[in-house]
Amino acid sequence: MEIIEKITVMQETSEKWRRDGVLIVLVPTMGFLHEGHVELLRVGRQKGDRLIMSLFVNPAQFGPQEDYQTYPSDTEGDLEKARSVGVDAVFMPTAQEMYPDRSQTTVNVEEITQYLCGESRPGHFAGVTTVVAKLFNITKPHLAIFGEKDYQQLVVIKQMVRDLDMDIDVVGVPTVREQDGLAMSSRNNYLSAEERVSALSLKKGLDLASALVATGEKNAGKIKNSVRELILNHPFTEIDYITICDPEKLTDIERVDGPCLLALAVRVGKARLIDNIILREH
Amino acid sequence: MEIIEKITVMQETSEKWRRDGVLIVLVPTMGFLHEGHVELLRVGRQKGDRLIMSLFVNPAQFGPQEDYQTYPSDTEGDLEKARSVGVDAVFMPTAQEMYPDRSQTTVNVEEITQYLCGESRPGHFAGVTTVVAKLFNITKPHLAIFGEKDYQQLVVIKQMVRDLDMDIDVVGVPTVREQDGLAMSSRNNYLSAEERVSALSLKKGLDLASALVATGEKNAGKIKNSVRELILNHPFTEIDYITICDPEKLTDIERVDGPCLLALAVRVGKARLIDNIILREH
Repeated sequence: MEIIEKITVMQETSEKWRRDGVLIVLVPTMGFLHEGHVELLRVGRQKGDRLIMSLFVNPAQFGPQEDYQTYPSDTEGDLEKARSVGVDAVFMPTAQEMYPDRSQTTVNVEEITQYLCGESRPGHFAGVTTVVAKLFNITKPHLAIFGEKDYQQLVVIKQMVRDLDMDIDVVGVPTVREQDGLAMSSRNNYLSAEERVSALSLKKGLDLASALVATGEKNAGKIKNSVRELILNHPFTEIDYITICDPEKLTDIERVDGPCLLALAVRVGKARLIDNIILREH
Repeated sequence: MEIIEKITVMQETSEKWRRDGVLIVLVPTMGFLHEGHVELLRVGRQKGDRLIMSLFVNPAQFGPQEDYQTYPSDTEGDLEKARSVGVDAVFMPTAQEMYPDRSQTTVNVEEITQYLCGESRPGHFAGVTTVVAKLFNITKPHLAIFGEKDYQQLVVIKQMVRDLDMDIDVVGVPTVREQDGLAMSSRNNYLSAEERVSALSLKKGLDLASALVATGEKNAGKIKNSVRELILNHPFTEIDYITICDPEKLTDIERVDGPCLLALAVRVGKARLIDNIILREH
């Protein structure tokens, strides 16, 4: 497994692979890999001839009050996991390599970044799309893989790829969960044992919504209220948002008629956790 | 010469060329080709194995009061010129092909687009960088060629390429002029015979500035005043800006010590003309 820190070296490596006619897959990560990341890597390994994992905690997607400085890291463990899945190259640049002085260009998806996490994390998605555009230009993949846990991120990146005519397939992979249902996240690391119990309320809320829809409830407001009530019945929880929306445009909807996205963000202690489900009529 | 209207066809064509290991050059144009464009194509022909010319009048870079609707066009003549220089492929999409419904992503270079033309044409450079990013993703060039006549555009695109790690060499080509000094421009087409005479004041202004610097004048304000006076002594002229600035950062400078960019934009009748020169101490 190659470990590459320089942009030009990564570009030359990918360029050579492309000339060889092999299919390159990128799995972008911020490290501190859990089973969810490993699943992305496994899917990537299966879909491509060459598998690149990027490992970069992107300062541009954190707000000033957010956890950039304390974001968990375990580079040795990450490289071990990457090796075990059969990653061909890990691209792990420094922040200085990625953002040298006088960097002043941003890629911005304008509408769908206004909703959900975009509302409580201004600038977050511009940071994401800019770094992902950079990573695409550096690693030159034919296919890139993202987790559905960050559903809005996946939709935003698909939109960017379509709008800018990037010749890349973007593939989403279903959320991997702990046995008790908690969505895997590097930020679960922030939870105390008690908070860990409350964090289960996110998945319970999604399941409740799903059950309500199964029994014929179509009123989005009522469903959201039930979910809110369930979550707030758990200690340490503070709701950032609960939204039922169009799964592509991310605009609020009032009646669950076609497939809808239920997405939520909840603070549990100092962890801000997100989860989502596609609600479908039965 | 291939004439390609579909994005996917252009991408497949370029992808095949890249796999063959040949060097691809892109010359982006808005058509109505003059000798300046032809010079860009000649340089491109010399530097690459495959030469792509794009021909697309980009609505996103025109302001609402600008000349998008009346921008001159001569597709037959353009294709004839392209053929005569040995262009391999002309990419000429429709506006609908380039901007289908719900396009919502922009690429924006933030600082250096605030000055010069960016000040009088808000949104112009975001339109330019977005379409150029798209054209790069569609035509996949190793090298792209732009005229130095649009000096700020050239600097902005170089900045975008650097900031987003696009693996593309951006090459500037010196301005081509009519025998009497007028910089070639599709917009010269808007000039009446009398206005055509006044339009010469732009180049005369640049030459005057150059002569002043040669005689030891370092005061940027004085130089700009002399240029302004010269231009306003010609009828039909209205000055948009006259700037002396750092050639990369485009920030105003007060003393001509190192090489500086003198850039100007002047309305002559209904044509808005631009020109520039690098001032150097002798």
